Amino acid sequence: MSHPLFTPELKIMLGEGNAAGLREFCESLHPATVAEALDDPDLSPEQVWEAISPAPIRTQASVFEYLPPARQVEMAEKARPQVGQLIGKMSHDDRADLLRRLPGRAVEALMRLVDEADRKDIAALGQYGEGTVGALMTTDYAWLPGTLTAAEAVDQLRQQAPDKETIYYIYVLDEAARRPDGSLAPRRLLGVVSLRDLILAPRHTLIRDLMEGEVIALRADEDREAVARVFSRYDLLAVPVVDDRGGLLGIVTHDDVLDVVQAEATEDLQRQAGVGPIEGNYLDAGFGTVWKSRAKWLGVLFVLQMVTINVMAYYERKLEGDPGKAAEDRLAFLIVFIPLCLSVGGNAGSQASTLVTRALALEQIRVSDWVRVFRRELLMAASLAATLGVLSVGRTYFLTPNSVLADLRPGQFWHLIWAVTLAVMGICVTGATVGAMLPLGVRAIGRDPALMSAPLIATLSDVLGIAIYFNIAAFFFL
Amino acid sequence: MSHPLFTPELKIMLGEGNAAGLREFCESLHPATVAEALDDPDLSPEQVWEAISPAPIRTQASVFEYLPPARQVEMAEKARPQVGQLIGKMSHDDRADLLRRLPGRAVEALMRLVDEADRKDIAALGQYGEGTVGALMTTDYAWLPGTLTAAEAVDQLRQQAPDKETIYYIYVLDEAARRPDGSLAPRRLLGVVSLRDLILAPRHTLIRDLMEGEVIALRADEDREAVARVFSRYDLLAVPVVDDRGGLLGIVTHDDVLDVVQAEATEDLQRQAGVGPIEGNYLDAGFGTVWKSRAKWLGVLFVLQMVTINVMAYYERKLEGDPGKAAEDRLAFLIVFIPLCLSVGGNAGSQASTLVTRALALEQIRVSDWVRVFRRELLMAASLAATLGVLSVGRTYFLTPNSVLADLRPGQFWHLIWAVTLAVMGICVTGATVGAMLPLGVRAIGRDPALMSAPLIATLSDVLGIAIYFNIAAFFFL
Repeated sequence: MSHPLFTPELKIMLGEGNAAGLREFCESLHPATVAEALDDPDLSPEQVWEAISPAPIRTQASVFEYLPPARQVEMAEKARPQVGQLIGKMSHDDRADLLRRLPGRAVEALMRLVDEADRKDIAALGQYGEGTVGALMTTDYAWLPGTLTAAEAVDQLRQQAPDKETIYYIYVLDEAARRPDGSLAPRRLLGVVSLRDLILAPRHTLIRDLMEGEVIALRADEDREAVARVFSRYDLLAVPVVDDRGGLLGIVTHDDVLDVVQAEATEDLQRQAGVGPIEGNYLDAGFGTVWKSRAKWLGVLFVLQMVTINVMAYYERKLEGDPGKAAEDRLAFLIVFIPLCLSVGGNAGSQASTLVTRALALEQIRVSDWVRVFRRELLMAASLAATLGVLSVGRTYFLTPNSVLADLRPGQFWHLIWAVTLAVMGICVTGATVGAMLPLGVRAIGRDPALMSAPLIATLSDVLGIAIYFNIAAFFFL
Repeated sequence: MSHPLFTPELKIMLGEGNAAGLREFCESLHPATVAEALDDPDLSPEQVWEAISPAPIRTQASVFEYLPPARQVEMAEKARPQVGQLIGKMSHDDRADLLRRLPGRAVEALMRLVDEADRKDIAALGQYGEGTVGALMTTDYAWLPGTLTAAEAVDQLRQQAPDKETIYYIYVLDEAARRPDGSLAPRRLLGVVSLRDLILAPRHTLIRDLMEGEVIALRADEDREAVARVFSRYDLLAVPVVDDRGGLLGIVTHDDVLDVVQAEATEDLQRQAGVGPIEGNYLDAGFGTVWKSRAKWLGVLFVLQMVTINVMAYYERKLEGDPGKAAEDRLAFLIVFIPLCLSVGGNAGSQASTLVTRALALEQIRVSDWVRVFRRELLMAASLAATLGVLSVGRTYFLTPNSVLADLRPGQFWHLIWAVTLAVMGICVTGATVGAMLPLGVRAIGRDPALMSAPLIATLSDVLGIAIYFNIAAFFFL
């Protein structure tokens, strides 16, 4: 998505080969804005390099980090030497992300351009799969031994700061220990101290007396959802990631959390709509990937929905009786109300399943609350059904098509009104309670409740709805 | 939601009247954890006060801030004097939130317990409506004049820090100006400097030479969505909020942004499922509120869906011909395929509308991209339709119920297969393109695209679907 003002300006400067102007452009604006201006389909990867290369290497790296992942990959493939230079200056989590997306050969070629420390760091971060806490982690955290005073600590930070992702939380680590095989194990996390506390503390206070020893930490192999949960519960700027021994592996900083929350919300929204989640941008996502994630669910729903054919055929036969039945005994007029009645179940069910699924995701309810949820949804469904019932009586009384009225025998008009209305109400209650209970059931067996997508609930409620409708109709008309 | 380990411990200490234990409990744990342990339906507001009162007043205020809003309101109503004491120590945005939720009389009574500066501050923040940037804002930001040196600035911050929500961004303001009426106008925002830069800078550098002058700022009356957008684009810790003159009114800090993003995502999920958004916790939300937000949409959808009755009646009459028609000419068997065919449109439409609505919300696409979206969805729908078409031929060939087969005249079997399959494919393409285009259309006229909820798309696609189905059937059978 290009920038409406800056992209044209940039193109003019590129056309003129105005290096001074480009440098000024990259340095004066926020790197996110520069990246936005550069993210234009008209600009080739070479032109993007031409635009940022006049700027200092750190600025280049910042702008590059803000480009969309697909663009980064394209640039890394088309201009390896430049990317090789930038990689040493990129933040450690962003470069690990980039390399995770590149094909194996490209990674190998790039790694040859990088110095050894960076190579080790990239390999360490690269081992964590996408969707884990480890994949969000950066290794450039600020740390100190606990034996320094506050004043010494601030001096030390002055040295460390330019390279660190954040210096607002400083991690206090113990001596390095050796593993049985002689290699160095990660230093153990003893506590955390904020820069605010360091600044406020008397100069000679020891760090270990200042630090908070009860540190909230995550494991590298946890699901990234844990990051969102911890940040939103404790209002943190960063959270440390530790191994089994309590050794510090890295930290996850606040800027990655928003992305996680947005990505998780997108995933939930897509699941809820019956789309296997699609990574990344809607228009950039591969056609085949999108097709697969949609066709899978459409196919499953289609096959399940096929049951409605048999259910309909069964009840239709029952209502129609034998084929020789006289025309005036036919009950075909009942058919016209089916789409209306079925839609009520789908709508009420999708409301209930969405509310319950989201409440589970936000930890507002637990599976053990199912009795409360059931009671509430039943009551809610009953009052919603009452509302629809009133609408249904009104509709059927005033607006039933003449062709339907012509098929009714004398005295059957109110039968029709009650049959439709009771069916609407019954289907509404069934849809809402099924919609509310299924996500809880799926969570209870340890699966993602968002699997009970709205279309799936609608399909199940269609099958039940046809049975409810025809049984009520049979009661009034047979 | 109580805490499985700490809530029982807390209840024991409360039972024993163990004030020292309670103080230790409140001080050693993170205030969010203490609040979680206190949020138990068994504990009365009085017991919650008893549990936190042994702790220092600042700790009390932090714990209170982490209690769920409904609980805060309940406590404020039951124990006004204690809340009056806490209010002076609460963070400015949290207390403004609390007062926004209290009834007018309770606010008046509380305001009498608060000193004048706080009262003015509360009134200033209270004027912004829920859902705006102003409602998220806090006024306890750190600020300095630009004429100080870096060393002087750090000294000044030591004085300011204990009261400030964050000292990691320091705002540089000009002299106070008077309005024409003699009152003081907010000081104008000249720039921002991070504590990191202050610490790194040589001691005698002037703040105005260090500061970033191009500040990304928001207006108080903007929608809170702007906060999420700015934070996720620029990776900030806080963003300033200014008035028309550029006067600094307050700041929004990172800890409020996650809540906004989660709340917006919840709103989108609920809208998408046809629920008028519900504020707050699923189980705590008032029955009447939830009823209203669900009944409204169920009612609207029900009324719209009523059109299907007339459409069905119209086509049924056309297919059935006059009532005296011979039994073997009746086409009632066509009816059993309707729920299946309609469901395809709803499912494909809800996938497309959800993908497009989310892409709009995340600014991955703009309304002007509609041609690209249309082309992509048409192609996608066509290939999804092809998949369903294969399933449909298989299903109809192998699994058509005997009662349907009995109604078919010789040679009509393949007519049936093609009618159902072409209808499924046509409805799939229609549902997906309508689902993709309507959210763009709604955004084009300046409304929230999430209004085109999945159930609404399903309803529209049902009406179109019946017409498509019967027209195709008529082509094969009349």
